Amino acid sequence: MSINTNPPSGTRDFLASDIRKRREVIKVIQEVYESFGFEPLETPAYENLSTLLGKYGEEGDQLLFRIMQRGEKLQQALAAPNVAQTELSDLALRYDLTVPLARVMARYAGQLPKFYKRYQIQPVWRADRPAKGRFREFMQCDVDVCGSTALTVETEVIAAVSTVLERLQFNDFSVALNHREVLRGLIEAAGIAAEMEGTALVAVDKWDKIGKEGVAAELVNRGITAASATKLLDLLEAASAASDNTSRLTMLRENLKRPSALKGLDDLQIILQLSAATGTSQRLALSPNLARGLSYYTGAIFEVVVPGVAGSLGGGGRYDGLVGMFAGREIPACGFSLGLERIILLLEERGYFAESSNALDILFTNFGDTLADTLALATRARKLGLTCEVYCESAGLKPQFNYAAARGARFVAFFGEREKAEGKLRLKDQTTGAETSVAVEELETMLPRAVTPK
Amino acid sequence: MSINTNPPSGTRDFLASDIRKRREVIKVIQEVYESFGFEPLETPAYENLSTLLGKYGEEGDQLLFRIMQRGEKLQQALAAPNVAQTELSDLALRYDLTVPLARVMARYAGQLPKFYKRYQIQPVWRADRPAKGRFREFMQCDVDVCGSTALTVETEVIAAVSTVLERLQFNDFSVALNHREVLRGLIEAAGIAAEMEGTALVAVDKWDKIGKEGVAAELVNRGITAASATKLLDLLEAASAASDNTSRLTMLRENLKRPSALKGLDDLQIILQLSAATGTSQRLALSPNLARGLSYYTGAIFEVVVPGVAGSLGGGGRYDGLVGMFAGREIPACGFSLGLERIILLLEERGYFAESSNALDILFTNFGDTLADTLALATRARKLGLTCEVYCESAGLKPQFNYAAARGARFVAFFGEREKAEGKLRLKDQTTGAETSVAVEELETMLPRAVTPK
Repeated sequence: MSINTNPPSGTRDFLASDIRKRREVIKVIQEVYESFGFEPLETPAYENLSTLLGKYGEEGDQLLFRIMQRGEKLQQALAAPNVAQTELSDLALRYDLTVPLARVMARYAGQLPKFYKRYQIQPVWRADRPAKGRFREFMQCDVDVCGSTALTVETEVIAAVSTVLERLQFNDFSVALNHREVLRGLIEAAGIAAEMEGTALVAVDKWDKIGKEGVAAELVNRGITAASATKLLDLLEAASAASDNTSRLTMLRENLKRPSALKGLDDLQIILQLSAATGTSQRLALSPNLARGLSYYTGAIFEVVVPGVAGSLGGGGRYDGLVGMFAGREIPACGFSLGLERIILLLEERGYFAESSNALDILFTNFGDTLADTLALATRARKLGLTCEVYCESAGLKPQFNYAAARGARFVAFFGEREKAEGKLRLKDQTTGAETSVAVEELETMLPRAVTPK
Repeated sequence: MSINTNPPSGTRDFLASDIRKRREVIKVIQEVYESFGFEPLETPAYENLSTLLGKYGEEGDQLLFRIMQRGEKLQQALAAPNVAQTELSDLALRYDLTVPLARVMARYAGQLPKFYKRYQIQPVWRADRPAKGRFREFMQCDVDVCGSTALTVETEVIAAVSTVLERLQFNDFSVALNHREVLRGLIEAAGIAAEMEGTALVAVDKWDKIGKEGVAAELVNRGITAASATKLLDLLEAASAASDNTSRLTMLRENLKRPSALKGLDDLQIILQLSAATGTSQRLALSPNLARGLSYYTGAIFEVVVPGVAGSLGGGGRYDGLVGMFAGREIPACGFSLGLERIILLLEERGYFAESSNALDILFTNFGDTLADTLALATRARKLGLTCEVYCESAGLKPQFNYAAARGARFVAFFGEREKAEGKLRLKDQTTGAETSVAVEELETMLPRAVTPK
């Protein structure tokens, strides 16, 4: 038959060795976030279409996986002439974890604490064109604090993410730090009109990819004068080139007048000071040309940078206008999103994961007649915390050893008629080839010694 | 604004206390299944529509959540006159975990061991009418062995599920056991034509809900003679009424002639014998009127029964014709599916979960001036494995104590100007009201003693 048995385009099946790696990383993220007082949240895979539409811009709307109406409603929609896409669908798969958070903030307002510190590690789906390393189903790991404008929030979120990355043995990462109001102040200082601010930010965001010249060309293409473009980029470049965070702050302060921009600089200074207390300030690199593409940020912005790695492992910032959208009131918020797939890819390259994905301590052989005794021994071994499998079928030695190798079993155990008569379980170490025996009567004390822990 | 902030119909948001319960149960299931040598598998949320269509009967096809085509393909489909539902959609959400397993068995045939023992714990989606305790998004916990017809498989699957339930302190469950070939033999012995076999099985499956009289009426309604219906039900009832598994086997054997049915009885006898070795035979109740609705079972069938609880916590059996459907060859298989939502509901009723969902060891108060020192202390406390939160904002005592209560913090910590001058962190136990102090210099040794483990 000619059925396609690949997972759908842009998605993946995860076999055991992949899942072990993913679980190992997710466990670190959970543990660290919980140690900072963040609480887990999980929301449904799909939301009402009306909840999602219009939240991600026109392009985002196109990338939603929409779920078709069912039953009568679908029939009615199909019967109408010139049926529109929106009438055929009532639900769509989760596109990110922020809009569901905003819905949760409105729905459970009365139940949640004054500051809602939540993390959420769940897949999201985007109908992007699949490419190497880009998937249509991928995990987001978000951490956010809702309900406070205090800079403790920025400091703690940065510290939490840094702790995750340190626990994962990323010893070379830094966290680029900037502030939207500082950027706006610089754009103003360069003589760029307020209505071109968003355009300028989008262009500056590409600095890493297309360089200073590329950004300059894009700014001019989009209607900004060459003089203003040059002034903005020279300002950004000069401030970025200063030797340390303090001198970057000083240089920026000299070029800014707008009170909100100066307040932004004060914010950055306080975040740097408080981060000295959490031990993360040496990770922080004030980065005047960090822009972050998304339009919704309102304050500090950050991005994890690993030298020699294109793109980032995650980013975030303060976005005070978004999370209150369904609650009908402004709810300040600040958060960070880590990309699980990039982190795992990099950890694999760096040899972070233990070589052996070996999950089986003992394969018990099966020669038929003593199967019941073997099952009883495997049951006792499992109660000792060992992972054990009994070969399903009565068979010769060869297929059983082949299977033990395929399963990566550490030991192969024998309990045939001879071993039964002697009252001993015979064990063969698959690494060394060494054989030992354990008296069945003393299994509980002797087996854990024979099968040394992994 | 009038936006609906509920999760979509039939789905749920899970806040922290729900997630803790779910994770606790899932962890037990994972640990036990892995101790039996089962390996985890995860597949994408959606499959190609062609993979799913026609696999769950007509009713199942109706319950699929179909995902709309996107972009040009959608426009083309919509432009055609009298567009059909199947042309508008190319993907659908996972309906169960068995069809994805069958796809995986075909796709990764060369990579998987001879016997593929996998578990999969993931949500599935069905567009059923939502009702109390019935959801459109719910978790399935499946465990299956593919590749062997040996009865070791049935025995180990039953033992694994029993171990899960014992670990979850279900001390009163039993596992009802029957065999499709035995049922077929009894149906034949009652004089019911082979082509009515499926119909008879569906009716017998309702015994628990509608009683013997109800089943009899249904059998007659569907064209089976009253004499045959009575004979079948009397046979089933008499065998079920026998005092123990051995006498039930004996009684059934007296009424069966078909070799395949006698082989089925032999299978059941062996499963019971081998289960004595795994310590689960006292859980097994031979149940001649257990039918299991699904048509695909071919051998032993089982179902978890808890006295006083309607319906079951899970069930399964041998289904040798299904898992090979994409591989183009027969792959014998046997498995068990547990329903996470029912298990959690029952565990909640039984008070299984610890009262406190208290996740915060220490809330550090914030009085502004000493914030940096407080952050440094919280950082040190987290390194000791304590979960700590620093109150975001500088505030008076009252809102901070209110927040500590809302967050269920065990201790509130103070490090204001006075404590800083004294070099001591002051701690208030929120349960007893007792106060202690820990010298900042000795935090690493003294704090863990002051904040006794949960």
